[in-house]
Amino acid sequence: MRSQKCINIKNYHSDGFIGKYQRLVKNEVIPYQYNILCDNIPDAEKSHVIQNFINAGKALKGEDPGDGFYGMVFQDSDAAKWIEAAAYSLVNFPDTELENTVDELIQIIDKAQDKDGYLDTYFTVKDRDKRWTNLLEAHELYCAGHMMEAACAYYEATGKDDLLNIMLKNAEHIYKHFITDKNEGYPGHPEIELALMKMYRISGNKHCLELAEHFINTRGVDPNFYVKEKEKRDWNVWGSDPYNRDYQQSGKPVRKQTDATGHAVRAVYLYTGMADLAAETNDAELYAACRRLWESITQRRMYITGGIGSTVIGEAFSTDYDLPSDTAYSETCASIGLMFFASKMLENEVNGEYSDIMEQAFYNAVLAGMQLDGKRFFYVNPLEVVPGISGVSPTHRHDLTLRPKWYACACCPPNAARLIGSFGKYAYGENSDTAFCHMFAGGNVSFENGMKFSCKTNYPYDLTVNYKIEKGGKLAIHIPSWSKIFSIKINGNEISLMPEKGYVYFSVNDGDNVILTLDGTPRLMYASCKVPALTGMAALCRGPLVYCFEGVDNGGDILSLALKKNGTISVGKFNEELLSGTVKLFAEAIRIEDDGKLYSDSAPKETQCTALAVPYYTWGNRGENQMRVWMNVR
Amino acid sequence: MRSQKCINIKNYHSDGFIGKYQRLVKNEVIPYQYNILCDNIPDAEKSHVIQNFINAGKALKGEDPGDGFYGMVFQDSDAAKWIEAAAYSLVNFPDTELENTVDELIQIIDKAQDKDGYLDTYFTVKDRDKRWTNLLEAHELYCAGHMMEAACAYYEATGKDDLLNIMLKNAEHIYKHFITDKNEGYPGHPEIELALMKMYRISGNKHCLELAEHFINTRGVDPNFYVKEKEKRDWNVWGSDPYNRDYQQSGKPVRKQTDATGHAVRAVYLYTGMADLAAETNDAELYAACRRLWESITQRRMYITGGIGSTVIGEAFSTDYDLPSDTAYSETCASIGLMFFASKMLENEVNGEYSDIMEQAFYNAVLAGMQLDGKRFFYVNPLEVVPGISGVSPTHRHDLTLRPKWYACACCPPNAARLIGSFGKYAYGENSDTAFCHMFAGGNVSFENGMKFSCKTNYPYDLTVNYKIEKGGKLAIHIPSWSKIFSIKINGNEISLMPEKGYVYFSVNDGDNVILTLDGTPRLMYASCKVPALTGMAALCRGPLVYCFEGVDNGGDILSLALKKNGTISVGKFNEELLSGTVKLFAEAIRIEDDGKLYSDSAPKETQCTALAVPYYTWGNRGENQMRVWMNVR
Repeated sequence: MRSQKCINIKNYHSDGFIGKYQRLVKNEVIPYQYNILCDNIPDAEKSHVIQNFINAGKALKGEDPGDGFYGMVFQDSDAAKWIEAAAYSLVNFPDTELENTVDELIQIIDKAQDKDGYLDTYFTVKDRDKRWTNLLEAHELYCAGHMMEAACAYYEATGKDDLLNIMLKNAEHIYKHFITDKNEGYPGHPEIELALMKMYRISGNKHCLELAEHFINTRGVDPNFYVKEKEKRDWNVWGSDPYNRDYQQSGKPVRKQTDATGHAVRAVYLYTGMADLAAETNDAELYAACRRLWESITQRRMYITGGIGSTVIGEAFSTDYDLPSDTAYSETCASIGLMFFASKMLENEVNGEYSDIMEQAFYNAVLAGMQLDGKRFFYVNPLEVVPGISGVSPTHRHDLTLRPKWYACACCPPNAARLIGSFGKYAYGENSDTAFCHMFAGGNVSFENGMKFSCKTNYPYDLTVNYKIEKGGKLAIHIPSWSKIFSIKINGNEISLMPEKGYVYFSVNDGDNVILTLDGTPRLMYASCKVPALTGMAALCRGPLVYCFEGVDNGGDILSLALKKNGTISVGKFNEELLSGTVKLFAEAIRIEDDGKLYSDSAPKETQCTALAVPYYTWGNRGENQMRVWMNVR
Repeated sequence: MRSQKCINIKNYHSDGFIGKYQRLVKNEVIPYQYNILCDNIPDAEKSHVIQNFINAGKALKGEDPGDGFYGMVFQDSDAAKWIEAAAYSLVNFPDTELENTVDELIQIIDKAQDKDGYLDTYFTVKDRDKRWTNLLEAHELYCAGHMMEAACAYYEATGKDDLLNIMLKNAEHIYKHFITDKNEGYPGHPEIELALMKMYRISGNKHCLELAEHFINTRGVDPNFYVKEKEKRDWNVWGSDPYNRDYQQSGKPVRKQTDATGHAVRAVYLYTGMADLAAETNDAELYAACRRLWESITQRRMYITGGIGSTVIGEAFSTDYDLPSDTAYSETCASIGLMFFASKMLENEVNGEYSDIMEQAFYNAVLAGMQLDGKRFFYVNPLEVVPGISGVSPTHRHDLTLRPKWYACACCPPNAARLIGSFGKYAYGENSDTAFCHMFAGGNVSFENGMKFSCKTNYPYDLTVNYKIEKGGKLAIHIPSWSKIFSIKINGNEISLMPEKGYVYFSVNDGDNVILTLDGTPRLMYASCKVPALTGMAALCRGPLVYCFEGVDNGGDILSLALKKNGTISVGKFNEELLSGTVKLFAEAIRIEDDGKLYSDSAPKETQCTALAVPYYTWGNRGENQMRVWMNVR
């Protein structure tokens, strides 16, 4: 039985910090990304996504498919993620023109679907006979999964079921291929598992649940599946190594897996599907496996920003404690996937660990993926950049100092857009009698259990959250682990509560005014001694925000700055003008001056100074400059 | 005019530390490596080097070439470097059996030489028609260069000229191809330039000088040479990118080059040839280019160990100040090449900078390349290893925690052997009236200018050096820059001398007893603030030795150790039993204990302790454990 579930997307109307981001997604990201998909942005990477669907439709009618297919094998998924983002946006910002655009795109997609339900423009345009022969690389199930998510979102947001029906037909096609016709295999890039769970929840179609179970339960049972699959075909997309089983999360059945390995996005998408299935089916063994994998990530393989997948080689998890700041990969999509995983773990068990990490990933690695103007995006999120090395040195080419406009592999920008648009689903949950506040998000929220309240807050800058209760019931509020002290007042009267597994539970009545105050004291965070890259260093945090030091605030050079041990850290005033509205931190620091030699036996001169820090998610918005999260302490 | 030149190899007979290493090379390395070349070591990488020459000889006679060619395209060079090492060894340790073995091998090589003078088993066995069509990758000039060096060494050591004549014939073949027949091109892997300079010096053959000048002067003049060359052929060795001009040191004429770029070994071999030519021809412009490249390396792109080429990607120089300890490449051969370069810079100008770096590279990165028993070798020399990450993480696979027996690409082990065997040539130089002591090497030395002395020292552990003068003259002794204080006594009387560009100059008479005492105080070294990887850290050094901290001496864990700011560092007694004879250092330190969390807001507990350090070159000789050169200071 689920401990609680996500709210319906229609039941959250945002304001505050989240509202501002959702408006940005509506005003900038969604139109910009649609123009990208249509190739209307002159100097951005070519997308061709919509044309691929149009050309697939022509191919199916036996017409000339024009300029054919262009892009990555998973290009279709960009359209899916955009539709999903647009769907969420329509809830808060009704927009007939946008809705018409989505409807037209859905008609194009409809025409690109084969009679048998198959939907994937790469194979439909290029070579129909190669369908389902390269699960390892070809992303057919991945693209289907994303389109299923889009279908669910658009149905939930608008009640329109055209895309849902397309994808139910597609699910039947997949069901026939894998279950009825007993073709072996499981997705090279997991994603469809979590999407099928959504389809099942929205439609009640049991084949969707059965398929999700099938892919999860068969994965790794035959660890040689990809080897055998490759032997049977004479073509490859990239020539991926089918023996690299850890990379493919397929060396063992998922219930036996202990370490988070391989491609980070694939891993967390898989684990999300597993956690969702475990909650749906009360599968304790599967939840235990999810728990081990969760601990592997969050206790040994995660950056303080909630970034995961530390190595560029394969966009993958590395070994335990290998968390370099400067060569970090930390893909935006992986942190989004970590939020998905956390959210589904919360549906198995309400535990503040999950909401802590969900918040940590969102306010740091995920938000850093997008420029403050919503127009540029990071795929890779390093915790240190030094112009001249980052983006230049052969081992640092992937760590850019500024956000590009778009990528040839454009998974991250639309993923961030859909995540922000659906923030309410991660922030709020419910069960039959309780409303859950996993994260703090201003706006009006209603619950299927009848509860209703508005939330006012300037979180994450103001650490006070006001809940005005319209319809009462039981409230469960997450107290972040970083807030060692907190207070809750109901109608002005402080109540004393001890968190249970990170949540306080109490009843509220219609008209109650609840004020939660969390600890806004800046804190220095220290890494485990087992992390070689971080010995002797500390990171500055406040609330859910990890801070960073940029050259522009610190005389151009932060490498010669060290934080003073036991130094004072003061909190600036909220500045609406700075970095779309932020709070600076001021730390007592030491500026080091060396003698100009590469190596010297003269200890560098030290002078006292104040170092200025800004939230990590705002970095790289003021031109190219040095940036560091982890600072030396002396 | 050369400021001074290397001594003849026959004029140095070693004892002390260098003598011990030369004996190790004689007793262990040379026989072991010969067995490798003959594939007599069961569990080492296959070599096939000698069989390649035998098979080439058969091919030339029109016989069946047996099992053909095996190995890297530059496999021949392993034989050359082994002969060179054996030649040097024969000076100090006459050995008829070894000499016979070399003579037999030379006869095999003789038979592998084509009638026209061409010598390269790869092409002779595999495809004669492809000769000289892939200078970018095929290493023909590189292998020729190494065999020329071997020929010079064997002639200098034994007076036997069989191999020298083979290589003079080979030089004529190359002269005809590139000069007479005007075929374009320059070596993909520079090496032959420095070898031709040696050939010229030994033989007086002007074609050798002319060829060296030709390769140096034409390099980069047509930066598209490799592009055009590749267009003309339908085969490749590895498919190297001919447009990667910086990597090939061919983007500009060498006189215009400013930064040390690309494959580090190739770079320093090229610069060595350039410096040698500049000294030979009084070419101030060429020396100025060498000087710029020298500064690029030693002021911005060198590890404190004298390691160069910081990135595994292409075994190459990275950008300025990109000097990570844990992912360091720092190939043993590159540091050997840096010593070559320094030695030839000293022939342009006697300047302690050059001898400082020569010594720094030798006692640290170069010696670390070899196990203390002479049986195992590092190709890659990291400044930090952490078992579980090093050698395991995708970005750290090249950084091994223990030395392997041999490598498929076996350039480093024989390179170390020949360098150690010819140490006298780097340590001692001369001109018409002066004997130069660039480095401190115990033994008997005589000079062509008539001077002669013995040197007694337990350097680098005892910082006192005794010169007993047999035949007097002018003496020039390098005072290492790390020794801010020093004293010189002649027959017990201290003399006051100020170093000029790092050298003290004074006259000595027959029978004089000169005692030089250098500063043996341990010192902490700090890196420039521009090196992101080293902020807040220091390295412990004494004399020419960089020290490191290993787990085995420090309770298994050095990541939780920090050196105490202004702490006391004491020097252990020389221990003959430890690590083939060494001195430990004891530093006041702090042991940090964290709370077990990956990230915590609790500052780690600190306790006082003593950290033990051993010389970097001895690391990894006591099993797998953590190792660090750069330590946090707090």
